[in-house]
Amino acid sequence: MPTAISVITLLTDFGDRDYFVASMKGVILGINPQARIVDLSHAITPHQVEEAAYLIKASYQYFPDGTVHMAVVDPGVGSARRPLLVTTSRHFFLAPDNGLLSYIFQEETGIEVRQIENKQYRLDSEGATFDGRDLFAPAAAWLTKGQSPGSYGKLIQDYVTLPLTEPEWQGSVLAGMIVYVDRFGNLISNLTPFHVKEVQGRSRRSDISIRLGGVTINGLVRSYSQGEAIVPHALINSNGQVEVFIKEGSAAETLNISRGERITLA
Amino acid sequence: MPTAISVITLLTDFGDRDYFVASMKGVILGINPQARIVDLSHAITPHQVEEAAYLIKASYQYFPDGTVHMAVVDPGVGSARRPLLVTTSRHFFLAPDNGLLSYIFQEETGIEVRQIENKQYRLDSEGATFDGRDLFAPAAAWLTKGQSPGSYGKLIQDYVTLPLTEPEWQGSVLAGMIVYVDRFGNLISNLTPFHVKEVQGRSRRSDISIRLGGVTINGLVRSYSQGEAIVPHALINSNGQVEVFIKEGSAAETLNISRGERITLA
Amino acid sequence: MPTAISVITLLTDFGDRDYFVASMKGVILGINPQARIVDLSHAITPHQVEEAAYLIKASYQYFPDGTVHMAVVDPGVGSARRPLLVTTSRHFFLAPDNGLLSYIFQEETGIEVRQIENKQYRLDSEGATFDGRDLFAPAAAWLTKGQSPGSYGKLIQDYVTLPLTEPEWQGSVLAGMIVYVDRFGNLISNLTPFHVKEVQGRSRRSDISIRLGGVTINGLVRSYSQGEAIVPHALINSNGQVEVFIKEGSAAETLNISRGERITLA
Repeated sequence: MPTAISVITLLTDFGDRDYFVASMKGVILGINPQARIVDLSHAITPHQVEEAAYLIKASYQYFPDGTVHMAVVDPGVGSARRPLLVTTSRHFFLAPDNGLLSYIFQEETGIEVRQIENKQYRLDSEGATFDGRDLFAPAAAWLTKGQSPGSYGKLIQDYVTLPLTEPEWQGSVLAGMIVYVDRFGNLISNLTPFHVKEVQGRSRRSDISIRLGGVTINGLVRSYSQGEAIVPHALINSNGQVEVFIKEGSAAETLNISRGERITLA
Repeated sequence: MPTAISVITLLTDFGDRDYFVASMKGVILGINPQARIVDLSHAITPHQVEEAAYLIKASYQYFPDGTVHMAVVDPGVGSARRPLLVTTSRHFFLAPDNGLLSYIFQEETGIEVRQIENKQYRLDSEGATFDGRDLFAPAAAWLTKGQSPGSYGKLIQDYVTLPLTEPEWQGSVLAGMIVYVDRFGNLISNLTPFHVKEVQGRSRRSDISIRLGGVTINGLVRSYSQGEAIVPHALINSNGQVEVFIKEGSAAETLNISRGERITLA
Repeated sequence: MPTAISVITLLTDFGDRDYFVASMKGVILGINPQARIVDLSHAITPHQVEEAAYLIKASYQYFPDGTVHMAVVDPGVGSARRPLLVTTSRHFFLAPDNGLLSYIFQEETGIEVRQIENKQYRLDSEGATFDGRDLFAPAAAWLTKGQSPGSYGKLIQDYVTLPLTEPEWQGSVLAGMIVYVDRFGNLISNLTPFHVKEVQGRSRRSDISIRLGGVTINGLVRSYSQGEAIVPHALINSNGQVEVFIKEGSAAETLNISRGERITLA
């Protein structure tokens, strides 16, 4: 279990123009004025749990030990879905039980998952539930004040996980999918250097070809600057995933491809 | 009067892509490097004082005692309109005298309103006035350093308030208006549980119907998750106001309704 | 050389919806949990080094002594372009060697420019380079921990500067250009009060006329509030530059003018 220091990250689909995010920050600072609050992102497409799941996966490991990651993309707010507190060897995670933490469950070992039940860590408010402000924000702030995870609620085993698509062999090609499209229009897949080597091993050739959206890309370049303009290229990106890009352009727009598209290695 | 701790919230229509907000933060940190700066929002529609007034109303009370709320939506910058420092029992507010703090004047008791006159709390700069950076930011930072409100300027009584529309009886219906539309397209009215009870009392029925934009909604649900898709529903939202929403959709777009629209209870 | 305190500003074209900015912040807080991180802007048009150069020019001087300004707009990431550490009498600057710091080179005296070579201040990561996270963020964080600039790498003289267009006389008019368009559509030029006086001196008249996009504006007003609606006006803005605006409107849209447009004084 991590020792509590006071970085809290926030990941929501609340946008940055309304009062939602500010209210959560006010609640946190009211409980722990020393908390360091970092916005992971508030621009998740509304209700897109998968997008949030990828974004937290891509950034959480860069934060210091003891960081509290609070993620609220929660189409089921107000329903019976449970609020979770997850501890790993280094971090805390607070999120609704809707699969948002699926990559954390997959990547981390020694995790403990608790249902947040203790009403002491909850803000009273009238009207419909705003769990980000009334439940997750105070729960996060109290963690940074040293409250023990055990005091939040009982351990559970039956938490929700998203069906994370793993690349699979289809005949002679290894088929993965695009899991994230970033602001530059870069297409990030669930294929990694491990899969590249697997394909090279089977084919007994060092060259490799990437196909998606009817386009074939031959080989990987090492950096964005090695790509030529207009033509799509692929590389292993800074998170260790195969990524298709167009230099100083948008691969997503040019190839008309979005999240979920099939991509193959051969 | 609150004791000065060092949270400063910022609310502007400056957007987040230019140098405006960063310059203000630089000025604040130059005076008090310990200040905790929280962005309330910088996405207010340019010059929409009413929108800013609602946003600060919806979030200020969640911040700790002593917080300095600085709000700069200021179509009259450079004109004779006065800069204000307002103190309540818990908070400080800095804003131009254009009605931006109307809800604070309405909701808080024991307020003191001062015109900021002391040039010591002002940055010298050439050219046209950027009061956010040159006046409000240093004034806010010096408050967190313990300067007394009284040193800023004289008490005034004739500050500007917006005509805040109160719901009123029109025949057998209680008519309110939509005061805010959030990023999800939820329509927030100035009707509260108090008004709901008033209508129920008059009609001697517990059921209630909500009308806006030619649509009738029967009864209130308790949470977003209780709504069915496509159909508009209403609930008491997390700020204690009647809100019309479409589950996982935009009520504003579907019903083609924006701020100012009439909404009735019967 | 500034003494190291712990404000770090971030300026990028990464946007605020992906994991890029958050990852950099995580790295910084992992090295120095006391660092105060301020977003200058992440909304630079992708790859527009000139826009970033102007934005840092317009805001850096408002930050306290010792501030570390980290700017990553870097079309050449992964190529041979060098990462720079620049020290002035008050601040530190970290940026790729692509001209992003041109205004700093022009405005500041006693600058020292170093190529960042020391691999100790670098994060190991697989795949393509994400220099913002893996090089600039740790380099910035270590500066706030008191590491000496000299330990980063050798002094260089042949750093890149953008060709900053200076206003020049063309016959009887002084011709400048629009260097920045802000969110309100205000058109900011590279003309200053110095140039206004120069024109007045030559013409021996105190009145002045501004021309751009086929429109003539007579004289300068002193504040936005002095403008009449619909008609374009000009003033010396809060950064000491001639700016064309339309009161409560967008001069950029109305006049159909963007960055690079010619503007003349006569």
